[in-house]
Order: sequence, then structure tokens, then C-alpha cells
Amino acid sequence: MAKNIEVGEAEFTAKDYQDPPPAPFIDPEELTKWSFYRAIIAEFIATLLFLYITVLTVIGYKSQSATDECGGVGILGIAWAFGGMIFVLVYCTAGISGGHINPAVTFGLFLARKVSFVRAFMYMVAQCLGAICGCGLVKAFQRAYYVRYGGGANELAVGYSKGTGLAAEIIGTFVLVYTVFSATDPKRSARDSHVPVLAPLPIGFAVFMVHLATIPITGTGINPARSFGAAVIYGKQKAWDDQWIFWAGPFIGAAIAAFYHQYILRAGAVKALGSFRSSASAY
Amino acid sequence: MAKNIEVGEAEFTAKDYQDPPPAPFIDPEELTKWSFYRAIIAEFIATLLFLYITVLTVIGYKSQSATDECGGVGILGIAWAFGGMIFVLVYCTAGISGGHINPAVTFGLFLARKVSFVRAFMYMVAQCLGAICGCGLVKAFQRAYYVRYGGGANELAVGYSKGTGLAAEIIGTFVLVYTVFSATDPKRSARDSHVPVLAPLPIGFAVFMVHLATIPITGTGINPARSFGAAVIYGKQKAWDDQWIFWAGPFIGAAIAAFYHQYILRAGAVKALGSFRSSASAY
Amino acid sequence: MAKNIEVGEAEFTAKDYQDPPPAPFIDPEELTKWSFYRAIIAEFIATLLFLYITVLTVIGYKSQSATDECGGVGILGIAWAFGGMIFVLVYCTAGISGGHINPAVTFGLFLARKVSFVRAFMYMVAQCLGAICGCGLVKAFQRAYYVRYGGGANELAVGYSKGTGLAAEIIGTFVLVYTVFSATDPKRSARDSHVPVLAPLPIGFAVFMVHLATIPITGTGINPARSFGAAVIYGKQKAWDDQWIFWAGPFIGAAIAAFYHQYILRAGAVKALGSFRSSASAY
Amino acid sequence: MAKNIEVGEAEFTAKDYQDPPPAPFIDPEELTKWSFYRAIIAEFIATLLFLYITVLTVIGYKSQSATDECGGVGILGIAWAFGGMIFVLVYCTAGISGGHINPAVTFGLFLARKVSFVRAFMYMVAQCLGAICGCGLVKAFQRAYYVRYGGGANELAVGYSKGTGLAAEIIGTFVLVYTVFSATDPKRSARDSHVPVLAPLPIGFAVFMVHLATIPITGTGINPARSFGAAVIYGKQKAWDDQWIFWAGPFIGAAIAAFYHQYILRAGAVKALGSFRSSASAY
Repeated sequence: MAKNIEVGEAEFTAKDYQDPPPAPFIDPEELTKWSFYRAIIAEFIATLLFLYITVLTVIGYKSQSATDECGGVGILGIAWAFGGMIFVLVYCTAGISGGHINPAVTFGLFLARKVSFVRAFMYMVAQCLGAICGCGLVKAFQRAYYVRYGGGANELAVGYSKGTGLAAEIIGTFVLVYTVFSATDPKRSARDSHVPVLAPLPIGFAVFMVHLATIPITGTGINPARSFGAAVIYGKQKAWDDQWIFWAGPFIGAAIAAFYHQYILRAGAVKALGSFRSSASAY
Repeated sequence: MAKNIEVGEAEFTAKDYQDPPPAPFIDPEELTKWSFYRAIIAEFIATLLFLYITVLTVIGYKSQSATDECGGVGILGIAWAFGGMIFVLVYCTAGISGGHINPAVTFGLFLARKVSFVRAFMYMVAQCLGAICGCGLVKAFQRAYYVRYGGGANELAVGYSKGTGLAAEIIGTFVLVYTVFSATDPKRSARDSHVPVLAPLPIGFAVFMVHLATIPITGTGINPARSFGAAVIYGKQKAWDDQWIFWAGPFIGAAIAAFYHQYILRAGAVKALGSFRSSASAY
Repeated sequence: MAKNIEVGEAEFTAKDYQDPPPAPFIDPEELTKWSFYRAIIAEFIATLLFLYITVLTVIGYKSQSATDECGGVGILGIAWAFGGMIFVLVYCTAGISGGHINPAVTFGLFLARKVSFVRAFMYMVAQCLGAICGCGLVKAFQRAYYVRYGGGANELAVGYSKGTGLAAEIIGTFVLVYTVFSATDPKRSARDSHVPVLAPLPIGFAVFMVHLATIPITGTGINPARSFGAAVIYGKQKAWDDQWIFWAGPFIGAAIAAFYHQYILRAGAVKALGSFRSSASAY
Repeated sequence: MAKNIEVGEAEFTAKDYQDPPPAPFIDPEELTKWSFYRAIIAEFIATLLFLYITVLTVIGYKSQSATDECGGVGILGIAWAFGGMIFVLVYCTAGISGGHINPAVTFGLFLARKVSFVRAFMYMVAQCLGAICGCGLVKAFQRAYYVRYGGGANELAVGYSKGTGLAAEIIGTFVLVYTVFSATDPKRSARDSHVPVLAPLPIGFAVFMVHLATIPITGTGINPARSFGAAVIYGKQKAWDDQWIFWAGPFIGAAIAAFYHQYILRAGAVKALGSFRSSASAY
């Protein structure tokens, strides 16, 4: 019996306990692999599809509700579009690129040394290009309505200060990146066998939730590529004037989430796990 | 073959059958561990984020639907905000603190001897402080609308007696805490291999469901920290007059759920499991 | 290596391939066990909570939308209430009673010899009593609105023939019971390792879907206990005149689903599985 | 310990790494098995139920919102009906037929050599017949409204060019079929233990998302059987004039998705996996 349990444990250890070593700042070997370029392509395509579906939903809703007050999918439908697409795309690309689809997520994971600098930089470029192409498709398909209904661009709503908008973006991105860290924590399933790791679903829900709360304030960015791509294609001054909020906010929020997870929550996790191994009484 | 099955079984036993011993009333050792303080921080942050997102959704909906009748996320969107955030936050904090985010849940688990008194008390303090901070953020961000649209506070709607409001809170919290007990039952997966344990999702859905049903009656509390934090920041007399309902109701509901699960459902579970082990025919 | 694979296979067999023997028509031993009575209590409580939450949502929606056209949770919210509660309650009671909460489901599983006659009969009685109590609570809480807004009772809408209503109930229940059979098929995970068995979620979604489609026709029964409990508490003639539709329809639909699953889908499953075991090439 | 890890790996390999050989173009042995005919029956029934529930929801929504502007389930409810039914039906039929329910999905999997030509052809015939029967049921049940409210047929909305409609269908189907490939990739769980494979849910969400975005443009086809069945029963000229869009678009989209998955994403997967096996450092 003792041996049998050991079998179970060894298997468990092999799969769950091992923390990968921190990613190097620059990893030359990485650049020689197809999996690196494939990951960049996947981020580009995923961000393109993300912006295409979500901005098309926004424009479609606004053009329908202009003629029929209750006619479109509603703000609730828009929030579902953003959250649901993140769920689908994280699910599809997680095994290829890690499923970031968002420079703020990439930045947070870079700070936590999960990805190298080169990879993080290339991901962000791919995400911004993908977002531009996705919005471009929407503009091409919705010629009559795209500019009239705001192009899905993020702008501070009337009556809110720049400070409020920045704070809303910081907290919103904190919710998202904190969820990403929690969902992908390799130590997680080791500690809690009753909390299965269905990572993409809570990540998608976190995006859905933040949209429900902050669409009235900033239109909800929490993704610099999304805000940048929409601003490039929409091109109006207001979208560019507020653009810094949608980069500074998400990056600050992601940094706080990385700090919170790595130094507050994980510091103890390491210790708790140590005592768990030695005495099996820490849980 | 016999030996091989034994391997599977031993592994299974090690993970699933063992019931942790009841938590002591006061556990001095607990106080010396970082994991204890980390859990309190996690409850504080989670309750803060819960109130921030949900009350912001409520205020945003009310300010939008004031100018455009169908403009906001709707009551359905508000119910999603409460249920969805509980899903996300239970998912994120389950491994750190157990993911209570609600004094009624903490109280129910304390009655079932899952957490010590000291832990339960500290969790409740952290939850109430978090709720106050979360509502404070919403007030700061939504200065123009917060007080005008009721501050997300729980109040008995016109036309309902105090008894009805109390009963609605009791049954609503029963649904939630019963789901929590069912989802985290360590004996569960042992009995039913076809019912996988994706605990946070049904817990979030239970909150969503109760909000759909009782928003017209009490605004739906089922979480004393949520009602208390909103009342502190909102500060109007009506919210304080009804406050007792949102403490008594959830605590009574949680106690009934703990009794139902421990004495009606689990009493037999122990026996059934005993016979399962000896004869393998009880299932 | 050969031996190691054998380990994995034996474990797999033990958990997944074994089909339980058909339940006897009357099982005297069953009556001596606490788990039998516990299951009946669980069905009673679950059906009570199901009717309480869903009918309260219906009445709350109708009373809110009477004063404010877009004010309530909408028909979409009502459909979510029915589907979501089934998800939560099946999740919670699956390990105790199998999570039927619906005489049509019990009838279908009885036809497939999954439960004994005595158990099926007692479940149905408990479900009907639970439904009556759940509706009674709603009537007590919503005195002012309950009767005015139809009491959540199932009635044929104006403009639809009895035949249409009956057919809609038959097909709707077929969708539900077919999903129940698919989700709980013990052979399932053996054949398809890429289709994990998260049974309660698709069952809840099936209920949600059928409500979206048939609320305009019959108000959607597909659960005789739900229709009966609402009719008893509401008490108007129309609800009783149409009552037979909400018993005949679901029972016929469940019977067709049981036939479809046992004789069309499973007959071949047994054979395919046999060839899989011998040659490992059938998949 | 070394040996124990080997146990885990061997088990893992046996279940996850093995790629099934490409399906032959014509497989005579397949035609002799009950599982082949059973699969065709399951595709027929599933597509019938899919069209029945979704088109009934569309007609019910339109007839309700004609008298009460906010009365029906909304466009959001319609999008849920399509996405949710796909989730339920893929879940139910995945183990029987693979759960295609869509000629575009069948075509994509045929291009990737996952199904034989004969099977693909028979599936498509069964899907189209099922769709016709499902729409026929709706017409029979909703005699008064079916034709008046457009019969759930796909038509290009006013103001959009044929090119836009075709492009929208191509991209929408790409999203769906790309998700199908990602969700059913046998190499997937081998690479990423933190991304569990709950395949039917993201597939259903992908359908939901595409409907949110493109209902205003084409009514959203992305499923030739759905467009064909509705056109046959509805029978108006406009539905037939645009019919080619709803075959060409989905088939082109599925082909691009198959190419993207097999040549861009999987090509590298094979290599990455090879290096993972030899050095355990590729992840």
C-alpha cells in the first residue's frame, strides 16, 4: 500500500508541483524554434478575431438600437461578446502561445518572469497589428455605420475625470490579470484537489464582469491592443487624446496583480507547500 | 489485475475519502503561519473587488436607464455581475482562503467545524472592511450618481413586510450555502465518478439565481458584508433600519444549510460509504 | 512498459466500463437504508427550491415590467432561472438522489431500469409535494401579485391548438431526457477521452434552451411536478383544464428519449465497445 | 522514483499522444458497422432538434416583440439559443458521431482526414434532412407567424453587399471550425496540463459569439444545413437567391481553418513534441 501511494504521489509531483524556472530576459534558443513564430502568428490571429467579433457586435448593436430601442443585443450582449471571445480564444490558443491576446497580460507574465523579453515584445507587436486588422475588417464591412457609431473606440465618457478613468482601468486590469495568475498557477491543483483548473472560463468571465461595470465610464479597455487598434482605424482626436489612459492603466494594473500574486500570495504558498510535504498537516 | 485495481483504489482513497478532522475552536498554531494572514488579505481583496464591480454595475445601469429606458445592462446584467464575480473570485481565492467572500458562508463552515473560531472571526472582519472599501471606490468614481441611485444598498422594497424580506434572505442564503457544502464535500467524488467537482461554477450560479428571484423584494443581500459595506458608504437611515434583516437572514439560512447537510445528507453518506467499502454494492 | 499500461487500463476499466445491473422492479433491501429516505428528502427540498426561485422570478418580472416596460429580468432572465436552477440543483443532489427534480426524468430512468418502481414512485410524490410547497412560499411572499400575474402556472397560449402544445412538450422533454441519458452514460468516458463528463451543465442548458423556444407556446412545462405544483397553488380553471398536456407530453417525450438512447444509440455502443476491447481499432 | 514517473508517462502516452491514422477516403469496413448508421441517425436527430429549438426561438421572439417592444428574449436570447443548443448537442452526440451537426464542420474534418468521404457525405445528407424536418415542425407549430416573421431563413440584410455577407460567413465559420480543431486536438492535453479539455463548451460559445456579431448582417449562417433547411421550408425567392453565400462562405471558412490548424499550428506541434520527449525542455 505504501508503495502504491508513492506511485500516485510521484505522478502528481511530476505533473503539478514543479515550478518552471524563470524565463531568461533574452533566450536565443527560443528564436530558432518554429513554436516561437507559430505562437506569434496565433496571437496575431486571435487578437484579430477578438476585435473583429467584439467591435462588430458594438456597431451592430448601436445601428439596430438607433431604429428600435430594444432591438439589439444590449450592453449585456456587448459584455458577453468581449468575455465570451476571450474564453474561446484563450481556450484555443493556450496550448500554442499561452493565450494572452492582451499586452497587459503579456506584461504581467513578463514581470513574473514567465516569458522572455523578446517574446513579450513580439507578442505585443503581433497583438497590436492583429487588433488593427480586426477593426479594419469591421470598418470595411460596416462602412455605413462604423464612424457614425464611434468605431468601438475607448473614450472617457462625459462627466468622468481622467483620474477616475485611469483608476477604473487599473482595477479592471487587476481583476483580469489576478485571475490569469490564479488560473495558471502550477502549484494550484497540488494544494486543492477540489478546485479543478478550468482556466479559460474564469478568465473570460473576469473580462465579462469588468465590462458590465466599466462600460459606462471608459467603454472598458483593460487591453491596450484593443484600444490602440480601434483608435488607429477610427482615427478621431478624442480616441487619441485618451489613449494614454488605456496603456498606463492596464500596465499599472497588471504590475500590481503580478506583485500581489508573486509576493503576497505565492510567498506563503511556497512555505505552506514545504510544510505540507514534510508533515502533511498544513492544509 | 487485483493488485492493479488496488493501486487505483489506494490513490483514490488518499485523495478523496479522507475527511479532515474538525477544526479546533481556537488553533494557536494557525496564528503563527503566513498562510493564515495571507488568507485574510485574500478575503479582504476579494470582497473589495466583489463590491466594486457589482455596485458599479448597479449604479451604471441606473444612470444609463434614467436617460434611455433600455440602455443599461438590465436587471439580468446585475444578477450576472453578482453571480459571475462570485464564480471568478471563488475560483481565484479557493486555494488561498477557501474562497468565502461572505460572512454567511464563513458562519456556515464554522458551524460545520471546517474553520476555527479565530479564523471565522478574522475572515468576517476582513470581508466587512473589504466591502466598505469597495463601495467607497464606487462612490469616489461615481460621485454624481452614487447617492442619487441608492448606492447599491439593500433595502426592503415597498409593499413587502419585514417577515417576507427575512424569509427571502433565509431561503436565498440556504440555496447558496447548501451549494457550497455540496460542492466542497470531500466524500462527493468518491461516490459519484460521473459528477465532476467544478465547484466555483455552481456556487456562482446559485448567487445568480437568487438575485434573479429576490432583487424585486430586498435587492438581494445573502451576504452580510455586502449589505453592511453598502450601508456604511451610502449612510441613509432606511439602509440601517433594515440592516438587521441582512444579518439575521443570511446567518439563519447558513445555519439551516449546515444542519441539513451535516445531519440529513451526510449522516447517511457516512453509512452508505461504510457499506460501499465492505461490500461494493451500496452504490 | 507493458505492465505499466496495464495498470492504467485496469484502473480505467474499474471506473468506467462497468454497467450497473438493471434496477429490480421492487427492491426490499433499498427500503431498509437511510440513503433511500435521504434521497427522497433531497428530491423534495430540491423541487421546492426549484419552484420557489423560478416562480418568484416569473412573478417579479411581470410585476416590474407592468410599471416599467424594460424593468425586469426579461423572458431571457426567466429562461436562465429555470435552466440555471436545474444546473445548480442537479449538481447538488446528483450524489444523493441522482438529481432528478422532475417526474419525467424519473420516469425515463425507470423505463431504462436505472431506478426501481418504488423509488420512482416515491420520488414523484416527493417532487410534487416539493413543487406545491415552493409555489406556496411564492404566493405567501408575493400576496399582491401572485394571482394577478398568473402564478407561474403552465397554460396553453392563445392561438395554439392542444395538439401543438402537446407536441411542444413532447419534443422539449425529449431534448431534456436525451441530454440526461447522454450525460450519465457510464460507457461514455470510456469511448471518448476528449469529451469530459460535466453532466449537470448541459442538463441545465437543455432546460434553458427549451424555455427560450417554448415559453410563448405553453410557458414551458417539461416537468409535471412544476406544472402540478403551480396549478394547485394558483387554482384557476384554465391551469387545470390544460394540466393533462403537462403530464402526457413530458411522459411521452421521456419514453421516446429512453427508447432512442437504449435501443438506437446504446445497442451499437455495446458492440462497438466489444470490438474496441478485442482489437483496439474500432474508434 | 524514476520508475514511478515512467508509470505516469506510459499511461499518459497511451491516452494522449497517439494521433489516430488519417481516415481513408473510402472505408468499406465502416459500412458494415452499426456504429456508422447510428452516427448518421444521431446527426439527423441532432440537426432536427437544433433547427427546431433555434427557429422556434426566433419566431417566438419576433411575434412577441411585435406586440410588446421589450417582450421577447431579445437578439441576445436568439444568440444564446444557437450557441447553447450547439453546446448541448455536441455534448450529447460527441460520443456517437463526433457531434458535427454542421456540414461545414464535417467538411473541415474531412479535409483534415479525420473522417472518410463516405461518412462526410452521409453526414451532410443527414444534417440537411434533419434541418428540413426541424424547420417543418416549427412551421407546423407556428402556422400563424412562421411565414410572416421570415421563417428563420438566412438573408443578406439591406445595405450590405454580397461580398460583405460572404466575408462575414467565411470569418464566422473560421472562428467555429478553428475552435473545433483546437478543442479536439489529441495532442492538446499532452502539452498543457493546465488547459483541461471541456470541448463542447467553447464550441457552443464560438457559435454564440458569431451570432452576436453577424445577426445584423446575414442573420448568421455558418452552417449550410441550417440555411438550407430554413430556405426549403420558408421557400421565398430571397432566401434562395442568397443561398450560395451560406454554402460557399462556410465551406471556404472551414477550409481555411483546417489549413491554419494543420499546417501552421500543428506542423510545429509535432516538432515541439519531439524535442519535449527527448529533452523535456521545450515547454
